[in-house]
Amino acid sequence: MTVELVCVGTELLLGNIVNTNGAYLAEKCAELGLSSYFQTVVGDNEERLGETLSQAVKRSDIVIVCGGLGPTEDDLTKETAARVLGKELKLSEQVKETIEAYFQKRGRKAAQNNWKQAMVPEGALVLENKNGTAPGLILEAQDCRVILLPGPPGEMIPMFEEQAVPYLRRLSPEVICSKTVKICGIPESQAEIMVKDLIDTQTNPTIATYAKTGEVHIRVTARASGKKEAQALIKPVVKELKRRFGHAVYSTKAGCTLEQAVVELLKKKGLTVTCAESCTGGMLSARLVNVPGVSDVYRTGFVTYSNEAKHEFLKVKKSTLKKHGAVSAETAAQMALGAARSGKADVAAALTGIAGPEGGTSKKPVGLVYIACSVRGKVIVKRYVFTGNRQKVREAAVASALTLIRDCIRCYG
Amino acid sequence: MTVELVCVGTELLLGNIVNTNGAYLAEKCAELGLSSYFQTVVGDNEERLGETLSQAVKRSDIVIVCGGLGPTEDDLTKETAARVLGKELKLSEQVKETIEAYFQKRGRKAAQNNWKQAMVPEGALVLENKNGTAPGLILEAQDCRVILLPGPPGEMIPMFEEQAVPYLRRLSPEVICSKTVKICGIPESQAEIMVKDLIDTQTNPTIATYAKTGEVHIRVTARASGKKEAQALIKPVVKELKRRFGHAVYSTKAGCTLEQAVVELLKKKGLTVTCAESCTGGMLSARLVNVPGVSDVYRTGFVTYSNEAKHEFLKVKKSTLKKHGAVSAETAAQMALGAARSGKADVAAALTGIAGPEGGTSKKPVGLVYIACSVRGKVIVKRYVFTGNRQKVREAAVASALTLIRDCIRCYG
Repeated sequence: MTVELVCVGTELLLGNIVNTNGAYLAEKCAELGLSSYFQTVVGDNEERLGETLSQAVKRSDIVIVCGGLGPTEDDLTKETAARVLGKELKLSEQVKETIEAYFQKRGRKAAQNNWKQAMVPEGALVLENKNGTAPGLILEAQDCRVILLPGPPGEMIPMFEEQAVPYLRRLSPEVICSKTVKICGIPESQAEIMVKDLIDTQTNPTIATYAKTGEVHIRVTARASGKKEAQALIKPVVKELKRRFGHAVYSTKAGCTLEQAVVELLKKKGLTVTCAESCTGGMLSARLVNVPGVSDVYRTGFVTYSNEAKHEFLKVKKSTLKKHGAVSAETAAQMALGAARSGKADVAAALTGIAGPEGGTSKKPVGLVYIACSVRGKVIVKRYVFTGNRQKVREAAVASALTLIRDCIRCYG
Repeated sequence: MTVELVCVGTELLLGNIVNTNGAYLAEKCAELGLSSYFQTVVGDNEERLGETLSQAVKRSDIVIVCGGLGPTEDDLTKETAARVLGKELKLSEQVKETIEAYFQKRGRKAAQNNWKQAMVPEGALVLENKNGTAPGLILEAQDCRVILLPGPPGEMIPMFEEQAVPYLRRLSPEVICSKTVKICGIPESQAEIMVKDLIDTQTNPTIATYAKTGEVHIRVTARASGKKEAQALIKPVVKELKRRFGHAVYSTKAGCTLEQAVVELLKKKGLTVTCAESCTGGMLSARLVNVPGVSDVYRTGFVTYSNEAKHEFLKVKKSTLKKHGAVSAETAAQMALGAARSGKADVAAALTGIAGPEGGTSKKPVGLVYIACSVRGKVIVKRYVFTGNRQKVREAAVASALTLIRDCIRCYG
């Protein structure tokens, strides 16, 4: 089956935002075994959107349209799709109630234009929006199915995964199964070399690598007549990947994040963790707290941006700060040990670095970050130099810190 | 004049990479005053690429094609473009020499398939590639110009800026300027109603609203013969928007974020800030630390996830935690006041809530967050109920906290 993506939004045409929805949906559709030949970006313009949709429904089995479902005047996707497929819009009491409930929950009243969102094309399947007011829709025509999704990724992604994916699975005659081997601490280029022979020789299952910040994900995807058969094709390849990457594999579970793997490992070892952050300013703690139930292992964390704070809350020696500077292996080590003491935690990770854009020197360039991890008083410090802007440097540092925590508790915990 | 982008590459259709070339080219074209109505992604397939290009040259004045100029068999862009425009391919001695020079410089010999890259459609302008072997090309047909660029950003961007931009400037009579009015604390549907009349009546400049987490951005875009003229069209509309939204407008500066506006306001008022976070686990501090030079106003922050940590580091009374619970207005207020004291800061923001997915009750549902802000001992607490998954609730809470900090220092700072 063929799928075609249509992303709607003037901000995409103006280049105000990068089309991450397109990449996300393309990746998911490939996982589902759908062949993708075209992606189109078009603005909130009825004529051009109509032209694009008419062409798409003619040449593709499934059309996924993303964006333009909001309450505002220039949101035309639903109306245009209904017109192209010759369907009437009718008020849906069900959707109206959902929107009312959404606003009641916030103690707010729905604005008049929110009711526009309760109009639904006849015969459409409604996809509930748990993160906003615009419902998604599935319109079924003779030889094509059109799936309308909201534009904001925070609304689109959960809706797609929870409601559109099961629908799409039912359409495809073949079963497509995939398993992702998630690796941390190995650069993508190296990971690719380590699996190139497999990628070149494998056709079913196929193998593809995806670079994430500080991680590489290797997806193994098999097609077969049944789930069992597909899984049987995947199993030996995953086993081989685990053999090649060893401890660098942090999970093969769907939806398992690096922070989740770290939290699970801490729980398994009965260890608690705390964080002392300078340049990352709380991002490491925030990632750990992403994990539901983290309270078993995480109680407190410290953001010590100034030298005074490093001294007062983490007992970093003033002489150390003076002699080696805030961005040094010595400071990082004392931050970790101090955080473990103050936070009464078995494990402590500390980060101090120069995120930029200013503050770099020839000896301490922008991107330099020292990360320390202490486990029951034993401390290890690593030096990293990351590239990219302030935000990229900080994200990369947090990913490396999670990897370092994992390595340290594996070895000493 | 209208421009249309065609990005060629299977890796885009599979979602292996995000289409940053598309966003880059779209933004540059908008700056050049070119109207962009369509962007298409298509694979290295002669038939579908041909179909896409035929349609593009019919409906647009300029077509920019990116990718598929490499030396390999499946790079078909040049051949397909030549066929669609009815042009013969001829060997270009000039290009042949450039490629020879490129390899000589690297002490390598050109592979046989590199000569494929020396074949040029008759009458085409050649754009030199200083960072690779694939030259860019400009093909001029009756009512359309087709610009072929290599896919790798490191080759495409310099070629576009140095050689394509001057060419496009000569074509385009108009410039486009836009200004974005950034608003916090007002939901999109409400903001939309407040500007509906302007959106409906304005054609130049145009007005569009964009929803962000906890923010609404209103972009005003004008076309004119010159930059001055365009800015003159924008000015009165921006003034009117500022009048309507008043203090809710946090910035009209390009690239200015809400956290940046808050940090600038703190600097202006000579105030320092700290954060005490429970459910957000450091996200608020992390957003403030996004801002370069934040060290003037931010020294330290507290992540107090457990009750013990709230008591130990923020001096929240055990009786308060016992009587009202960790997620309560009383606890939030004590967290803020305690953080201001421990962190020696003028301003303190505190967040405590139920991010979910577990832990909700009928009285305290998932999504309930209390946010407190204290300014020099004066504390305000607000109650919010956010929807969405754990991550979404936390992001919305952080945006609301930044808005609350801003309001509080505006009123009491």
